[in-house]
Amino acid sequence: GDCGDILRLIRELAEFEKLSDQVKISEEVLRADGFGENPFYHCFVAEIIPAPGERQGPCIVGYGLYYFIYSTWKGRNIYLEDIYVMPEYRGQGIGSKIIKKVAEVALDQGCSQFRLEVLEWNKKAMDLYKALGAQDVTQAEGWHAFRFEGEAMRKLAGR
Amino acid sequence: GDCGDILRLIRELAEFEKLSDQVKISEEVLRADGFGENPFYHCFVAEIIPAPGERQGPCIVGYGLYYFIYSTWKGRNIYLEDIYVMPEYRGQGIGSKIIKKVAEVALDQGCSQFRLEVLEWNKKAMDLYKALGAQDVTQAEGWHAFRFEGEAMRKLAGR
Repeated sequence: GDCGDILRLIRELAEFEKLSDQVKISEEVLRADGFGENPFYHCFVAEIIPAPGERQGPCIVGYGLYYFIYSTWKGRNIYLEDIYVMPEYRGQGIGSKIIKKVAEVALDQGCSQFRLEVLEWNKKAMDLYKALGAQDVTQAEGWHAFRFEGEAMRKLAGR
Repeated sequence: GDCGDILRLIRELAEFEKLSDQVKISEEVLRADGFGENPFYHCFVAEIIPAPGERQGPCIVGYGLYYFIYSTWKGRNIYLEDIYVMPEYRGQGIGSKIIKKVAEVALDQGCSQFRLEVLEWNKKAMDLYKALGAQDVTQAEGWHAFRFEGEAMRKLAGR
């Protein structure tokens, strides 16, 4: 039932990243892929519970979407694909709480690390991750992310 | 049966990347994680078949290790964690063949893209990926990879 809200926040995040033209996913696909028998991803949502007597129901104001990956150095591992908190709810520690929950899952599942990616102009996010103990491995070791897609992928596969 | 060879090549790759102190994985863990009921990763190996009459058996000289990830923009997706060809077998198109196989799997499984990471001083690999149609999204969009691990992770989880 939260997939509509998750998609709303996915779009807000992409807009914030100035990459909103890239969002092609639908609520139906998110529901099928995340809530079937073998979910392709997992997701935490941050919910604001209304004060007693308030008319409005609970409201989802942030999310952290992650999945399991595999390190040939360290074994099972978590990747935090998205983390987002709506602007008006920032500065209350919601983002840090989501990251802490992901770290708990990682340790519970025997993962020795988790990874994420951030846009270099998003200094505020970078500072938060560093303050929480993350290492910028693009800066430290020089890793560059590459992506094959669309026509290039079809050409590669000879289709 | 190939896990011993895969681990040998994982170590060679880490040595080439000047990060060999990071390899903590064992053959047993690789076998359990990759070849159980719900494998955490998949792997192609490149095998050299000996000429008829040659004493030596088939020899594994390269590998590509990948798994499924999830894009909140595009849905199901593949990540190529490692790709490696032994130095004496380079320049024969083995690396490109592995990448092509991964692109085929990606399309067969409904993935519209696949991702990988490369060290920025590895110009030869970068040039190959670009020639095959990949985009350097660290350069184009400014993505930086971050990693939480060890003490930082345990502190986050309050353990």
